[in-house]
Amino acid sequence: MDITMLTQIDHAKNGTVTPEMQYVAKKEGMDENTVLSRVAEGSLVIMVRDGCPPTAIGKGASTKINVNLGTSAASINPASELQKAAIAEKYGADTITDLSMGGSISRIRKSIFENTTLPITTVPIYQAIVEKGLKTVTEDDIISYLRLQVEEGVSSVVLHCVDKKMLETVKGSGRVMGMVSKGGSFTSVFMLTNDCDNPYLNNFEEVLDILREKDVVLSLGNTMRSGCIHDPRDPAQLMEMQTNANLANLANKAGVQVIIEGMGGHVAASAIPEFVELYKSTSPHPLFVAGPLPTDVALGYDHIAGAVGASMATGAGADYLCYITPSEHLALPTPDQVREGLVAFKIAAHIGDSIKYGISEKDRLLAERRASFDWEGQMELAFDSDRPRDICPMVGPCSMCGEYCAIQIMGEYLEGKE
Amino acid sequence: MDITMLTQIDHAKNGTVTPEMQYVAKKEGMDENTVLSRVAEGSLVIMVRDGCPPTAIGKGASTKINVNLGTSAASINPASELQKAAIAEKYGADTITDLSMGGSISRIRKSIFENTTLPITTVPIYQAIVEKGLKTVTEDDIISYLRLQVEEGVSSVVLHCVDKKMLETVKGSGRVMGMVSKGGSFTSVFMLTNDCDNPYLNNFEEVLDILREKDVVLSLGNTMRSGCIHDPRDPAQLMEMQTNANLANLANKAGVQVIIEGMGGHVAASAIPEFVELYKSTSPHPLFVAGPLPTDVALGYDHIAGAVGASMATGAGADYLCYITPSEHLALPTPDQVREGLVAFKIAAHIGDSIKYGISEKDRLLAERRASFDWEGQMELAFDSDRPRDICPMVGPCSMCGEYCAIQIMGEYLEGKE
Repeated sequence: MDITMLTQIDHAKNGTVTPEMQYVAKKEGMDENTVLSRVAEGSLVIMVRDGCPPTAIGKGASTKINVNLGTSAASINPASELQKAAIAEKYGADTITDLSMGGSISRIRKSIFENTTLPITTVPIYQAIVEKGLKTVTEDDIISYLRLQVEEGVSSVVLHCVDKKMLETVKGSGRVMGMVSKGGSFTSVFMLTNDCDNPYLNNFEEVLDILREKDVVLSLGNTMRSGCIHDPRDPAQLMEMQTNANLANLANKAGVQVIIEGMGGHVAASAIPEFVELYKSTSPHPLFVAGPLPTDVALGYDHIAGAVGASMATGAGADYLCYITPSEHLALPTPDQVREGLVAFKIAAHIGDSIKYGISEKDRLLAERRASFDWEGQMELAFDSDRPRDICPMVGPCSMCGEYCAIQIMGEYLEGKE
Repeated sequence: MDITMLTQIDHAKNGTVTPEMQYVAKKEGMDENTVLSRVAEGSLVIMVRDGCPPTAIGKGASTKINVNLGTSAASINPASELQKAAIAEKYGADTITDLSMGGSISRIRKSIFENTTLPITTVPIYQAIVEKGLKTVTEDDIISYLRLQVEEGVSSVVLHCVDKKMLETVKGSGRVMGMVSKGGSFTSVFMLTNDCDNPYLNNFEEVLDILREKDVVLSLGNTMRSGCIHDPRDPAQLMEMQTNANLANLANKAGVQVIIEGMGGHVAASAIPEFVELYKSTSPHPLFVAGPLPTDVALGYDHIAGAVGASMATGAGADYLCYITPSEHLALPTPDQVREGLVAFKIAAHIGDSIKYGISEKDRLLAERRASFDWEGQMELAFDSDRPRDICPMVGPCSMCGEYCAIQIMGEYLEGKE
């Protein structure tokens, strides 16, 4: 076997610490051998991209955030998508998923590649559907578009491995919101139109070969997720959770790294921790959640409801968060809404990590600078230092208290100087 | 005893269901006798204001939200404060606290009274300090300003009952952020300057008489709260928690309703649930928390970090939330930041209530309207319908998906029509 063909998981199984493992070990404050053994067991994934820094997602790594962007059939503005990619990079996204379905999809993807160093994920069936038709696309088309996007250099692809049994189970289940996964719906429509099995599962060995060759991470999509908190965990979801865990093991054995998309969408707050724990007890693979939203009524503010759900999910063990913007359920986000959603999820990941790993020294440093009225030093530690700078002029007395500052008037006594 | 002098808690102890109890029972979906027994035991408080609807806070009631507003010595714009009061009312605040310390404090308070029907809370020592001087105010002044504000018709006052033992305990404790409660610091400075005991505790019977006469709720301030997550729960805080629980019992016995401010400020996420439970096991009184903020680094986005902490605190049993705005730690909020902070906390209270009481039918209704593409019907259920209307034009296909809508393309199959 050609050494250049080995994936991170192959190297890990062989006991070889790769430069990528060294890089993420340093970045995450982990031991190299811990990284190696976790990559080998599939609990830690390293997303690689030619010429760009690798990104670790999973056990022991800080919680990562994905930013979705891309055109839709109803809204095509490639320049705006590039702006979103720039904002994602500026405000600390870890990965970008290009979900473009409008305009020249390949050209848009290419320009996003050229304008960011973050790993890029795609859902290949989107482009297949747009360019070949929802009812006319073939299995060959679906596999060809997967191959095309892998060859272009994506770091990860989302494949929805929904099967006939899941579709039978969810049919007539009385869910309020039915099926809300777009990629899952496309895959399902293909199966129903052609009365066939899942195109990826029908060709699973070939799919794994394609991914293996470029060490592309397989992200197992979440077709059966709930679309509202009144649609609770149901048999279709549990079936998909188990199927994805089995597929992940097969992929890992074939040298393909795997992330499991799960739970996301809409989940009642009280059900979030146990649901995450159920996933983690079913599979060691990194768990990727969208939100989740613990309420459906936060219209226009779903980034805030999502940040609450994501903090809870992260605290319970989720590894990787798909951000939600204020325009969720309403429209494609503007670049500024991408920023709002991303920063909300940076906060959620940070809070969740404080539960997973203990509170951060960054918080202590900020408090020390706050106590000493070091405004500029505080700004340096903010996730988005532009916004506090806009709010606070940092000249003269603070407009909150003016001369009546509690910290100031009690400071000397508390330090024992009085 | 003159019947008009009886407070809600007096009536409850006598077994009399008041019109106010009837009103809140209906509004909260509670049984009148349950309301009565909870008011009698002090676990449910009814804030009253002449000519305005009463507001229930505590056991069995939906979680309530307070909006702080008011001028500071460094920022005096009464018109802006009135705008904030209007926004608080429009977007569903339950109470307003006027913290004005700049300009003509009495006049500002009067105009806020005239422009809202919400219950108004004040911290009387603020005005005493501004008008009589931090180092020259007397005990008589402090009690006089309390009396003045009660006579003007406030529904609740915050008194910081810090004592010498707490001050000794917190001194030299090495807290990163020292003391961050403004009212608590003013009270402490008074005690240290005059080498005396707490002015409210020195005159506690008189204080209770003043409050009792107008059935004003005593809100026991939280002087010892942490100012950063690296300042954990400490002996000074536990001492204050116990002292406030004892004072609350004394006040209840004297016919005065009580809310306990606790925990708020900055608390590590993993410590929030147990800290709330500790409060609730110490005292049956409604627990009022500010935030709490589970991270210190969310500069410019503290309303989001606060919403996460508040959701967790509410889920664990907190009854009443003080909102936090994006400008927290930076400046007085603008009217628009009041709106942002308030809506974030409406979401937090709603999520927390889903943990406390189960998920709401409002969420089901929204999902049903979403599933049937009833845009206008969704807007009606939003906490802030202006924002989603700005985001979504509600004409033509949704810009998120255009023709590729998962709900639409799978709808018929799932309903068993295919």
